[in-house]
Amino acid sequence: MKILRTPEEMQRAAQALRCEGKIIGFVPTMGFLHEGHLSLMKIARERADVTVASIFVNPTQFGPNEDLAAYPRDFERDEKLCRETGVDLLFYPTPETMYLDSHSVWVDEDSLSEVLCGAARPGHFRGVCTVVAKLLNIVLPDFMVLGEKDAQQLRILRRMVRDLNFPVEIISGPTLREADGLAMSSRNKYLSPAERAEAVCLFQGLEKAKELFAAGERDADALKEAICEIINKTTGTVDYIEIADNESLKSFQALEKPVLVALAVKFSGARLIDNAVLGK
Amino acid sequence: MKILRTPEEMQRAAQALRCEGKIIGFVPTMGFLHEGHLSLMKIARERADVTVASIFVNPTQFGPNEDLAAYPRDFERDEKLCRETGVDLLFYPTPETMYLDSHSVWVDEDSLSEVLCGAARPGHFRGVCTVVAKLLNIVLPDFMVLGEKDAQQLRILRRMVRDLNFPVEIISGPTLREADGLAMSSRNKYLSPAERAEAVCLFQGLEKAKELFAAGERDADALKEAICEIINKTTGTVDYIEIADNESLKSFQALEKPVLVALAVKFSGARLIDNAVLGK
Repeated sequence: MKILRTPEEMQRAAQALRCEGKIIGFVPTMGFLHEGHLSLMKIARERADVTVASIFVNPTQFGPNEDLAAYPRDFERDEKLCRETGVDLLFYPTPETMYLDSHSVWVDEDSLSEVLCGAARPGHFRGVCTVVAKLLNIVLPDFMVLGEKDAQQLRILRRMVRDLNFPVEIISGPTLREADGLAMSSRNKYLSPAERAEAVCLFQGLEKAKELFAAGERDADALKEAICEIINKTTGTVDYIEIADNESLKSFQALEKPVLVALAVKFSGARLIDNAVLGK
Repeated sequence: MKILRTPEEMQRAAQALRCEGKIIGFVPTMGFLHEGHLSLMKIARERADVTVASIFVNPTQFGPNEDLAAYPRDFERDEKLCRETGVDLLFYPTPETMYLDSHSVWVDEDSLSEVLCGAARPGHFRGVCTVVAKLLNIVLPDFMVLGEKDAQQLRILRRMVRDLNFPVEIISGPTLREADGLAMSSRNKYLSPAERAEAVCLFQGLEKAKELFAAGERDADALKEAICEIINKTTGTVDYIEIADNESLKSFQALEKPVLVALAVKFSGARLIDNAVLGK
């Protein structure tokens, strides 16, 4: 596995690979890897000639009061995991080479980004879209693998690729979960042991919604209330519970087409998100 | 010369050419071609294996009160000129294939776009950046040739390519002028014969500024006043006359480094722009 530290170096390597006709698969990450990330790398490895992963804690997707400085980092461990998982090229740039002082160009999505996490984290998806546009131009992949846990991010990046005509396919990988059902996330490390035990409430809420939906419930408020009840038994605070069109992310009342159930819950140690698609 | 009508068709053709190792040179235009456009195509032809031109009157770079509907179009003539100039692929998409109804992703430049034409035309450069980002992803060129007449556009697109890491080189071609010095522009057609005769005032103003600069004048206001005096002898109205840092486009008073002198003048038939770089 080769580690590349600057955009120029990575882009040159990618261009050389493309000239040779190699299929490049790409998994962008913010590091502090868990099994969820590794499962995406395995998906890439199966379909690509060359698997590229990136580790970059992107400063522009953190708000001024968010956890940029505290975001967990462990490059040595990440490097080892990437190597063991069969990553060929690891792109690990410094913030200074990714964002010059006079950086002034941004990619904005102005519809899907208005709701859910976008409403709670203004500017977050602008940062995500901008860094992923950059990464796509640097890594030049044939396909990119993204996790389904970040449901809104996945839909926004699909929209970006469509609207800006990036020549890349997006493949999504299912959310991996701990034994009790908690979705794997680098931020789970922030939780106290007591909170960690409670954090399964997001999954339990989604399971409850699925159960009610399977039994014929089609009223969005009824599903949301059932989820809310489960969260409220813990020390977590509901940030949002939303039931939205699976494509447009518009919220609605009577469920007909497949819907996305998405929620965010704040614990003292971390804000967690999870989601499920109903009616697919 | 082959004409391609959809982004998908053009992108497939470009990908096939890249697989063959061909160098693609690209000239984006809004059509109604004049010698200035053709000179850029000739620059591309000399360095590329395959020369691609696009003709697309991009709706998103026109303001609500601007001349989108009236913008001159003559595809038959343009096609003939492209063919004669040695263009290999002509990308001529419809607005519907370029912008889907649910289009929601935009590329914004938020520093260089604040001044000059950007101040007078809010949203204009967002439209320009977005369509050029799309075109770069569709045409996949090794290099793109842009005209120096649109000085601010050139600098903003260089910034976009830098900040989003597009794997493309930007080459600029000098402004072509009519016999009397008027910069060639598709919009010159809008001018009445009397206005056409007066329109040389932009060039004359720039020549005057060069002359004063060569004689040692370094005060921006003095240069601006000299240009303004020349414009005011015509029926044209000064939209702006600006002297700005050639890179950052920040305006300043005492000229030291190379500066861009840029101006826009409104006639009843058209708003014209021109520019010169002093001290290079």
